[in-house]
Amino acid sequence: MDAIDLSHHLSPTAAARTPNPLKSLMKYMSVDGMVSLAGGLPHPSLFPFVNIEAEVYSPGIYTSESDSELLRFNVHKNGRANGQVVDLATGLQYAPTAGFPWLLQYVQDFVSVVYQPAYKNYDVLMNDGSTDGWSKVVNLLCEPGNHIFLEKYTFPSTQAMWVPMGCKGVPLEMDANGIRADVLENTLREWDNTHPGVKRPHVLYVIPTGQNPTGCTMPIARKQEIYDICVKYDVIIVEDDPYYTLQFDTYKLPSTANGHAAPPLPYDEAVFLDSFVKTFLSIDVQGRVIRLDTFSKTMAPGNRLGWFTCNPLFAERIIRATEVTTQTPSGWSQSIISELLHAWGPGLSGYLRWLSGLQSQYEIRRNWMCDALAKEFDAEQKGDEVIMYAKGTKVKILSVVPPRAGMFLWCKVHLSENKEYADLKGASEDLETFFEQKLWQDFVDAKVLISPGRFYAAWEGEKKPRNPAERDIVHFRLAFSMTTKENVDLAIRRLANVLHRAWGLV
Amino acid sequence: MDAIDLSHHLSPTAAARTPNPLKSLMKYMSVDGMVSLAGGLPHPSLFPFVNIEAEVYSPGIYTSESDSELLRFNVHKNGRANGQVVDLATGLQYAPTAGFPWLLQYVQDFVSVVYQPAYKNYDVLMNDGSTDGWSKVVNLLCEPGNHIFLEKYTFPSTQAMWVPMGCKGVPLEMDANGIRADVLENTLREWDNTHPGVKRPHVLYVIPTGQNPTGCTMPIARKQEIYDICVKYDVIIVEDDPYYTLQFDTYKLPSTANGHAAPPLPYDEAVFLDSFVKTFLSIDVQGRVIRLDTFSKTMAPGNRLGWFTCNPLFAERIIRATEVTTQTPSGWSQSIISELLHAWGPGLSGYLRWLSGLQSQYEIRRNWMCDALAKEFDAEQKGDEVIMYAKGTKVKILSVVPPRAGMFLWCKVHLSENKEYADLKGASEDLETFFEQKLWQDFVDAKVLISPGRFYAAWEGEKKPRNPAERDIVHFRLAFSMTTKENVDLAIRRLANVLHRAWGLV
Repeated sequence: MDAIDLSHHLSPTAAARTPNPLKSLMKYMSVDGMVSLAGGLPHPSLFPFVNIEAEVYSPGIYTSESDSELLRFNVHKNGRANGQVVDLATGLQYAPTAGFPWLLQYVQDFVSVVYQPAYKNYDVLMNDGSTDGWSKVVNLLCEPGNHIFLEKYTFPSTQAMWVPMGCKGVPLEMDANGIRADVLENTLREWDNTHPGVKRPHVLYVIPTGQNPTGCTMPIARKQEIYDICVKYDVIIVEDDPYYTLQFDTYKLPSTANGHAAPPLPYDEAVFLDSFVKTFLSIDVQGRVIRLDTFSKTMAPGNRLGWFTCNPLFAERIIRATEVTTQTPSGWSQSIISELLHAWGPGLSGYLRWLSGLQSQYEIRRNWMCDALAKEFDAEQKGDEVIMYAKGTKVKILSVVPPRAGMFLWCKVHLSENKEYADLKGASEDLETFFEQKLWQDFVDAKVLISPGRFYAAWEGEKKPRNPAERDIVHFRLAFSMTTKENVDLAIRRLANVLHRAWGLV
Repeated sequence: MDAIDLSHHLSPTAAARTPNPLKSLMKYMSVDGMVSLAGGLPHPSLFPFVNIEAEVYSPGIYTSESDSELLRFNVHKNGRANGQVVDLATGLQYAPTAGFPWLLQYVQDFVSVVYQPAYKNYDVLMNDGSTDGWSKVVNLLCEPGNHIFLEKYTFPSTQAMWVPMGCKGVPLEMDANGIRADVLENTLREWDNTHPGVKRPHVLYVIPTGQNPTGCTMPIARKQEIYDICVKYDVIIVEDDPYYTLQFDTYKLPSTANGHAAPPLPYDEAVFLDSFVKTFLSIDVQGRVIRLDTFSKTMAPGNRLGWFTCNPLFAERIIRATEVTTQTPSGWSQSIISELLHAWGPGLSGYLRWLSGLQSQYEIRRNWMCDALAKEFDAEQKGDEVIMYAKGTKVKILSVVPPRAGMFLWCKVHLSENKEYADLKGASEDLETFFEQKLWQDFVDAKVLISPGRFYAAWEGEKKPRNPAERDIVHFRLAFSMTTKENVDLAIRRLANVLHRAWGLV
């Protein structure tokens, strides 16, 4: 089944792009015996680089003790002559806009095996990481004045792309499974009544796995509901999924139930692949999902390397836009990642094994943080949630849903039983935001830096205040990715002290 | 002297950009004893990369025989602990938008020494190469419907950025020194009469050195004339100068006069620096020049690494735009180029020496091509121009101005004495374009691929035909950068055969 025609979603600028005339000469370059003086390329003999030897971890380093040796591979000027998959003479030259052929094929195989797209003629093409990817999607689809659907709490950088264009966000309420489908459907059904004369949103931006900032992961049943509504109302879904491969087991209280004492299970690729939540792409029979993947979280952000999976019409338009902006990702990034994936082979096997180990490393970090909270409070599991009461009391201060993916723990601070808050209640329209800022400053004074929930509020335009707080609740995002166990313990202890003190409980 | 206020040149989108709120937390991260859970960064211990060992040419390889050995340097996870200037743990992490501090300082020193900006508070910041740089400048300054000044013949990719936005080019006539200042001034003075109700162009895009496609280099006297007019009419100059460091001695007929037999002069940094044409930046007392530099031609295009030099207001706005698009250039590119420049040191000395060698290599290629033409035709030097007559005749077929910089030879084909052309004259409005295409096809059939002049025509809107030909003249761009002597000789022989045949002279 092929993608349907979705060309009416293109922005006027995206629709108007034309190919570079010089590209029309490309096909003649491969004519037998042709001597080309057409391309204004520097001569590769004049690149200063001869060879790169890289020393890297083995793919199994985090999954077992058996092959934790360092691996070595080369990226040589004439690499392909030596059995490598790229060579620096072409890898550092002007290169195909969509990406290096070997890498594209690898990524295509990864998409096919791991995501299993539901339509046939999807395309993959490389980009400079998901921020670059999203900016190209915004330019592909959005015009000034457009409204864009997004999760109620979302990543501020993605908004900062379209806010100055004069677009507005339409935040959608979330539950533990992500965006509520009923809210999406109601908003679309009522749009013309609630927004007379305003173009209905035609783009939904969603971070379905280990969402930033809420940590929540959308199950496939919810994705299917959302997808069906998007088909009905002709909405394009942008599935920004940087944390997809960092999915964990559910966190269980008490912390000893998380089984660190037990030896890790032997790695099994089939079991590993089967453990993933299914993607929007896997149910996308029409080609209306643009999926963004990145090597930033799995290999390192400095690669500035990711990829789109989307229908061929969108892909071709993105290539036209890429030709006049980034051209193609860094040849170093593409060369080194290609040779690394090759060295880790055969096929996808090494990279999948690496990802499995990475999962367990981030899961351990998730557990460090949840365990630290459980230690500093009286913790009680209630369904998906863990409630944190002040030590030795039944005063509910915090609640969290321990994430099953990603890097973030989203903390709800419950203000109802805070005396100062209760005293001031009614005195201010926006008391939650005031308390969020006050608590944040107290945390900073106690030398623990976290990010306040209001940073993640959807932008609805100048006139709408950015007040994301629920009644009597404020939020903080805690990242567990970039720390040590000692520092997590220390930070959570400081945080708990601040909260106990603010509640008058020390 | 500091830059004047030029904020009225910003596009509405560029003016409306706001900083990412998460960046406001940065300053707290460096507080002594602070434990940060704020940044959603992957942990560097989970990057697979441990060390890179690079093998490169010595900076002197093309300037003398004395140090043509290969150099080695490392980029290690903990590189700075080992005396390196970057380390992979931070180099592959999310990194400062403006670029790596060490690299920025290096580039700042290069700008200061080589370009000598005329005002004090200029900024430098890295980009993903000049295509990325120009796209950011267009978004910084241009709105749909704007008119943009450009050279009569220009690089098509730079136009492809703004054409779909609904901008239009205003091509300016050129002579052997580039854009004619009188034409620029007349166009500006008469604008309101010739374009009533249309906003006057406020951006001039220019490739001043080894211009693409004409190969022409603008002397400082012409730059000063252009600059003064731009001050008078408040025009921003975008100085896109990728070939700046590839400046050559003037080509002289006969070819033996180009001195290949003589040993190269010993390298002298002061002499080398003194040999460069002065930049627009060197006379920019107001900060109205945005200069684009790139490592693409001097190190390799695959680095996707270049930099802006501009006033601090523009720089800050570009940083805001970069945060939501490319974020920062590839950490691999920045790390490897940084360590290379460091290994080549001390200071700028190694890189300057490398550039000097590169110059001579491209000069040799320029000479190969001009010599090959001089061999296949009867060549005669007339001022800057070399006229090529058909062998043994006085039939003028070609003329070129051998470039003093860059990678391109711009060939004028003179049709007046072509019988077929003379017979058809008057029969078609656009006979030159017809003949350009016809000759181009003849060249392809003879297995030599060059690019036709019309590819480089300025875009003036749908209604204006893109007909860049002068009366009885058509153009072709020949790149001498990416070939061998054998292939240049072969290509020029084939080209000369086609032309002699088309003139009925074989």
